[in-house]
Amino acid sequence: MAVQVGTQNRRVTMASRPVGFPTEADFAFDEVEVGEPGPGEVLVRSLWLSVDPYQRSRMSDARSYARGLEVGDVITSQTLGEVVKSEDPRFSPGDLVVGQLGWQEYAIARGGALRRVPEFLDPPTLALHAVGATGFTAYFGLLEVGRPKPGDTVVVSGAAGAVGHIVGQLAKIGGCHTVGIAGGPEKCKECKLHGYDVGIDYKGNDLRSALKEACPDGVDVYFDNVGGAVSQAVLSRLNVGARIVICGQVSQYNLDRPEPTFHPGALIVYRARMEGFLVTDYAHRFEEAAVQMARWVAEGKVRWSEHVTEGLENTPKAFIGMLNGENRGKALVKIADPSEPK
Amino acid sequence: MAVQVGTQNRRVTMASRPVGFPTEADFAFDEVEVGEPGPGEVLVRSLWLSVDPYQRSRMSDARSYARGLEVGDVITSQTLGEVVKSEDPRFSPGDLVVGQLGWQEYAIARGGALRRVPEFLDPPTLALHAVGATGFTAYFGLLEVGRPKPGDTVVVSGAAGAVGHIVGQLAKIGGCHTVGIAGGPEKCKECKLHGYDVGIDYKGNDLRSALKEACPDGVDVYFDNVGGAVSQAVLSRLNVGARIVICGQVSQYNLDRPEPTFHPGALIVYRARMEGFLVTDYAHRFEEAAVQMARWVAEGKVRWSEHVTEGLENTPKAFIGMLNGENRGKALVKIADPSEPK
Repeated sequence: MAVQVGTQNRRVTMASRPVGFPTEADFAFDEVEVGEPGPGEVLVRSLWLSVDPYQRSRMSDARSYARGLEVGDVITSQTLGEVVKSEDPRFSPGDLVVGQLGWQEYAIARGGALRRVPEFLDPPTLALHAVGATGFTAYFGLLEVGRPKPGDTVVVSGAAGAVGHIVGQLAKIGGCHTVGIAGGPEKCKECKLHGYDVGIDYKGNDLRSALKEACPDGVDVYFDNVGGAVSQAVLSRLNVGARIVICGQVSQYNLDRPEPTFHPGALIVYRARMEGFLVTDYAHRFEEAAVQMARWVAEGKVRWSEHVTEGLENTPKAFIGMLNGENRGKALVKIADPSEPK
Repeated sequence: MAVQVGTQNRRVTMASRPVGFPTEADFAFDEVEVGEPGPGEVLVRSLWLSVDPYQRSRMSDARSYARGLEVGDVITSQTLGEVVKSEDPRFSPGDLVVGQLGWQEYAIARGGALRRVPEFLDPPTLALHAVGATGFTAYFGLLEVGRPKPGDTVVVSGAAGAVGHIVGQLAKIGGCHTVGIAGGPEKCKECKLHGYDVGIDYKGNDLRSALKEACPDGVDVYFDNVGGAVSQAVLSRLNVGARIVICGQVSQYNLDRPEPTFHPGALIVYRARMEGFLVTDYAHRFEEAAVQMARWVAEGKVRWSEHVTEGLENTPKAFIGMLNGENRGKALVKIADPSEPK
């Protein structure tokens, strides 16, 4: 497991700031020598990278919740890797960890910025989705922001995506009527596997009629990953007291200026609340979420779905595909196998 | 105080559904004979009528929180009047009451739908504003929906209007930095009388720069009566965790379709909550609000402002003027003097 002096670290960097939809030309590959961890630091070899919509926002220079990337920077990413060398007594070589390590083969991080993957997690990639950031996003976004009650109608856009395919199942556990919106008949069919009573194809003919039929009692919670025209249709069916969880707006990330699709007056009519959130604001409760999600996964109450691409060199392609909605469930890139246990 | 048989009741009705900005031709006057109250009912002679933005919504046939008016209907209004004849033992002739009695000289209402005006209220018209619907709107909207903390920056649009001129004072009582936005230099000057540290004229040259200067620490609570471009400017200065209270959208009421001015993605960046409300949802707490508001008024902590028009025949003009922003404080129409006490 030792890394030889002179070992090269292949990285994916931002070659240019994308204008509109990113292309592979916006990414570059380079190699730098793997460094040595300093005191309190850990050298990690990446096994799995994560591909997520928020990465598109980081490539923009619009004001956002986190500093944007500059040309030449390694693309930000949650990464699952194994510890190669540790100068933090809490970690030893071979430990599986998750951290914000970027699209690269090796990374050095402070031990405090890494989360250990519990040994009982099978497969360990769960720590990148159902029992990790996207699962926690579903968990806190639905339960804390959306606050569904049994019998509520919960509508989710991007229902077959990384977060959406978990939200439906959590809403079902909570006794809700669940409606998933996704693009294309295939994904809609899959919605049924993810806790949705009804799957609606927004690319189909008449989204508004389909919503009317699927939500005879109106919409109590709308968990929005998408924005734009899909949201406009859902917002026309709100119930009084509805909660709208703004988790993502993937339809907007490649636009120069986001479309203003919403007029706040509707919130008066329905006495509705629309609230944005970031999962990182709940970091102090990640352990609670991890325990609960791991338990639901173990009990078979939450089924997860991975969409795997192989090879660091295919990461930009996987990212662009995810933005195009080609993934089912959580988009991941596998870049290496774990070392053989000693 | 008795009403003679055959006494006529002059009324203001909707002559046609306004298209865009209402004109006087959208209103008609008629006369009907004053009726007799049945068991449990009360005949009220109107003294003061209220003129409010929500009345414009009622004249539209768009789906809203209350049934819209039909052509020929008396315009909905809060009215302050005196009891002429009562078949409800809780009321006696001469009592001052407030109720949803419409733009007319006489009305018959169920006793349970009337609120007695406390004798200590001076002037009694306070029951139509600071210690009535608009005061309660400011109270619950700011304190329950906006939830300001001492030191927060609170920005209010329509700051010189019926609700806005109360909100600034409540925010000041709560120890906030207060910024009022109003149209024209006169109203901005008046903002200073209504608890605002700064008054910004949105008709001035550069709203965004003025906001930047007035809110050096960003915006924690935005109490919105106006919507449209004013809101767009304020929403660009939100702090993380900001609360946006959607009270009214007066800039939008005369548009065929409201402008979609807002993209929800901003709520993620700021983890912000945008919530609409109706004061009627807090009816079970009106007494609490009345006691508190009456006390602040008596202590001189809440100053109120009335914009009075005389005569039922001038009510449509007063209404149109209010929609044009001509009023300072609460727009009222005085249509009769109270009877001499016996």
